[in-house]
Amino acid sequence: MNHRQFCLEDLARLVQGEFFGQSDLQLEGLASLDLAQARHLAFVNADKYLDQAQASKAGALIVTASLKNQLSNHHNFIVVANPYLAFAILTHVFEKKCEQKGIEDTAQIHPSAIIAQSAYIGHYVVIGEKCIVGEQTIIQSHVKIDHDVEIGQQCFIDSHVTLTGETKIGNRVRIHANTVIGGEGFGFAPYQGKWHRIAQLGSVKIGHDVRIGSNCSIDRGALDDTILEDGVIIDNLVQIAHNVKIGTHTALAAKCGIAGSTIIGKNCVLAGGVGVVGHINIADNVTITGMSMVTKSISEAGSYSSGTPMLESLPWKRAAIRFKQLADVPLTQLLKRIDHMQTQIESLESTFKRK
Amino acid sequence: MNHRQFCLEDLARLVQGEFFGQSDLQLEGLASLDLAQARHLAFVNADKYLDQAQASKAGALIVTASLKNQLSNHHNFIVVANPYLAFAILTHVFEKKCEQKGIEDTAQIHPSAIIAQSAYIGHYVVIGEKCIVGEQTIIQSHVKIDHDVEIGQQCFIDSHVTLTGETKIGNRVRIHANTVIGGEGFGFAPYQGKWHRIAQLGSVKIGHDVRIGSNCSIDRGALDDTILEDGVIIDNLVQIAHNVKIGTHTALAAKCGIAGSTIIGKNCVLAGGVGVVGHINIADNVTITGMSMVTKSISEAGSYSSGTPMLESLPWKRAAIRFKQLADVPLTQLLKRIDHMQTQIESLESTFKRK
Amino acid sequence: MNHRQFCLEDLARLVQGEFFGQSDLQLEGLASLDLAQARHLAFVNADKYLDQAQASKAGALIVTASLKNQLSNHHNFIVVANPYLAFAILTHVFEKKCEQKGIEDTAQIHPSAIIAQSAYIGHYVVIGEKCIVGEQTIIQSHVKIDHDVEIGQQCFIDSHVTLTGETKIGNRVRIHANTVIGGEGFGFAPYQGKWHRIAQLGSVKIGHDVRIGSNCSIDRGALDDTILEDGVIIDNLVQIAHNVKIGTHTALAAKCGIAGSTIIGKNCVLAGGVGVVGHINIADNVTITGMSMVTKSISEAGSYSSGTPMLESLPWKRAAIRFKQLADVPLTQLLKRIDHMQTQIESLESTFKRK
Repeated sequence: MNHRQFCLEDLARLVQGEFFGQSDLQLEGLASLDLAQARHLAFVNADKYLDQAQASKAGALIVTASLKNQLSNHHNFIVVANPYLAFAILTHVFEKKCEQKGIEDTAQIHPSAIIAQSAYIGHYVVIGEKCIVGEQTIIQSHVKIDHDVEIGQQCFIDSHVTLTGETKIGNRVRIHANTVIGGEGFGFAPYQGKWHRIAQLGSVKIGHDVRIGSNCSIDRGALDDTILEDGVIIDNLVQIAHNVKIGTHTALAAKCGIAGSTIIGKNCVLAGGVGVVGHINIADNVTITGMSMVTKSISEAGSYSSGTPMLESLPWKRAAIRFKQLADVPLTQLLKRIDHMQTQIESLESTFKRK
Repeated sequence: MNHRQFCLEDLARLVQGEFFGQSDLQLEGLASLDLAQARHLAFVNADKYLDQAQASKAGALIVTASLKNQLSNHHNFIVVANPYLAFAILTHVFEKKCEQKGIEDTAQIHPSAIIAQSAYIGHYVVIGEKCIVGEQTIIQSHVKIDHDVEIGQQCFIDSHVTLTGETKIGNRVRIHANTVIGGEGFGFAPYQGKWHRIAQLGSVKIGHDVRIGSNCSIDRGALDDTILEDGVIIDNLVQIAHNVKIGTHTALAAKCGIAGSTIIGKNCVLAGGVGVVGHINIADNVTITGMSMVTKSISEAGSYSSGTPMLESLPWKRAAIRFKQLADVPLTQLLKRIDHMQTQIESLESTFKRK
Repeated sequence: MNHRQFCLEDLARLVQGEFFGQSDLQLEGLASLDLAQARHLAFVNADKYLDQAQASKAGALIVTASLKNQLSNHHNFIVVANPYLAFAILTHVFEKKCEQKGIEDTAQIHPSAIIAQSAYIGHYVVIGEKCIVGEQTIIQSHVKIDHDVEIGQQCFIDSHVTLTGETKIGNRVRIHANTVIGGEGFGFAPYQGKWHRIAQLGSVKIGHDVRIGSNCSIDRGALDDTILEDGVIIDNLVQIAHNVKIGTHTALAAKCGIAGSTIIGKNCVLAGGVGVVGHINIADNVTITGMSMVTKSISEAGSYSSGTPMLESLPWKRAAIRFKQLADVPLTQLLKRIDHMQTQIESLESTFKRK
């Protein structure tokens, strides 16, 4: 991947950890315990990985102090309180950065647009009227930035992204390839059997440190704006409809869909494939498990689910037919009837004995 | 957003409404009741918004006659029978239009393609052999129009759209960014453990006034065509497989997926995330609620659903385990047994009393 | 579509079949039984299509020997053991091929990239440092190939595809429009209420004869690679997260999503909209029905399902409420109670008779 090397001592310092072993050991990359070789650094995050760690050929390991004591096969360590966080930090050291600067001569930039000196604008990028691109922001090839879009500093916008709808983006925002932000919301007034398009006049406001995956669609608002607050992270193929608002540090896994005007609180986690209807509120600190369908507001923090568990298809068919039958089987009433019958039987039995 | 201004009287005339108040009141935009200021027009659609409307700082309100009489705090009105429709119409007045004309010099257009005089072809658009682009149609930057694709008049094709598979598109069609139309259908003949690709020879036919969102995939037919009839509206991230046919004025919300050769009738509404299997028929005027799985034809108009409601995760786990148990719990037989036992108990009781 | 013509005898030879009827009958395309005309070849795959076949105006039919004997209205045939496979092969004969060669002068290719002589590089393609494109590979317009990506021979990469993350692609791979391969995996270390991005250092490895639809997202691995083995076929709008591994000849229909580090075996079929959680294993030869949610490893070949069947919305609401009640209705215990009560009743009855 990358041929830069770092010595163990320097890497330990970067994560404010303590190193043990050969201070000048040269490491050229991070690797998983299984695939790591002598020039690799790997991390161990929990006791359950101890066997794997003992067997690993990694040149050095990121561990906690207590894990270190159980790894007799190894001699080179970086000891930290949170090995996973240290690993996360070190991935940035070994990442191959885009080192291009300036504006490629094939970019089409409207004269009224303001592009910071240290920004990079890739080949075939098109930037419209009155756009702003901040310092150290990287715009990869083929990006379309429509008029009145503003992008902050140190952002990364990957290829084929479409930014339109007068979207405003904060600093350190990363938007992955082929995502569309600011597209027209799905707003139509039904009248006499036809759909009358409502031109969408709102925008999209994206805070700082937001991350959006590839092939996402985030629509502009109808009148007010669609809002992603600071620190929101979004995976691939996610749909955010017009006028949705998502609170700080909320995470949406791949293939979620949020319908129009719904408000999601802070620090929520929506697992993959979750669907949320429009015009509801979800409180802070809510977790929703994968593929759940959220049809009502959630006012209490907690974990929520819907759906049915996987079965082999044949028993599933039987269960599914009985799910249908539930429409005509009054379960709670049934329970009461059974309780009542039990009482009747017991009464019969005791009366009978008395005789 | 926009600095054009219109006076109250003119706006009322555009929606065939009656104005009340200051005829020359200058309005520069539409806004929601909450955010509207003195230069904004807002709309009130139902009694439940009356308190919000009373508190609104909007300069003027679009209302029905009966709503107007209840809004004592306001003096400037446009009175119409259908405020939402009037609002929909007025969004077009305040929308910022693409005013570009002609062909950008970076567009690559095959000499055999026919581009109407009043069309706009954006930067880095690529148009292949024998394509046609109609009058007043706008093709935004980076669009790829593959050979033999035809596009009607007054269409809007946003950036990074791929049109291929000899797709034919009617008039006033809007296709949002990064959508792919005419891609190869997913057709493979299984033989000796391998998948043998079936080259797709059909096309896609799109009627007039169709709207397709961003990041959609609409595949060309295998032999016959995939068809979207007039007035169909489709949201973002929707999959339409080969040889699907969708009837006029049917609406598909975001993240729907329709498998191959399925036929959907007219005036249907599929809510978000609905999946429909292949080779079935859905009648006209069918509504399908969000995230439903449609595995059989629907022959009657009406509303249909599947899935389970959301619960807190702990009770959900109990309910989910019992869903599995349903495979071995013959519910209707159980009901009969309970009815029978009841009869037995009653018979015992009455015989007992007689003794 | 296409104006090349082939005679019946030559087409029969291409599929190693036997022709009957007019050997020099000129055929200019394949068509469905319903739409076929005198110059078209259609196929009949099963007895259930016999009526349709008899009524068809097709000039010739691809059939089995036994089907041929039942089609008295027709005289021109190609007889083979597997008509669907023969049809699949012949679609390639009538497919309009991209005949362009060479490198369009608007392509931006880094001097260190190696492009085979017989490859085609379309307009506005951008190819980065150290990339390789193999012989006869077609790269359509606007494709972005980021540094260190390698593509084998006879591949087809459609417009607006983004290849990044140092992805390595085998031979005869087809990737449809607007798909993103090698995008950054969704990896974050939570710490003190924030998400700390983990730069993704792994890659994507794609074998030979793999097919990927449009608008898919296939992420690069965190440390190790995301892997698609030979012969994997994937439909549109599919999400493959970091470090997923998919075995040979497995098929994923549209809108599937596979979460991180999950391993799927060989020859599996996932129907549309299936979601699979991360860090699990699915055995070879597993079929998963549409929209199922897979939350646990599957160790046995077979067919698996989840979800509930579709109902009219009113009975569905009743069934759905009772699904919730299942959380408090101990079904199997209920069955035991009923069995016990039955015994009690029978005991009462027999004792009663004895008296």
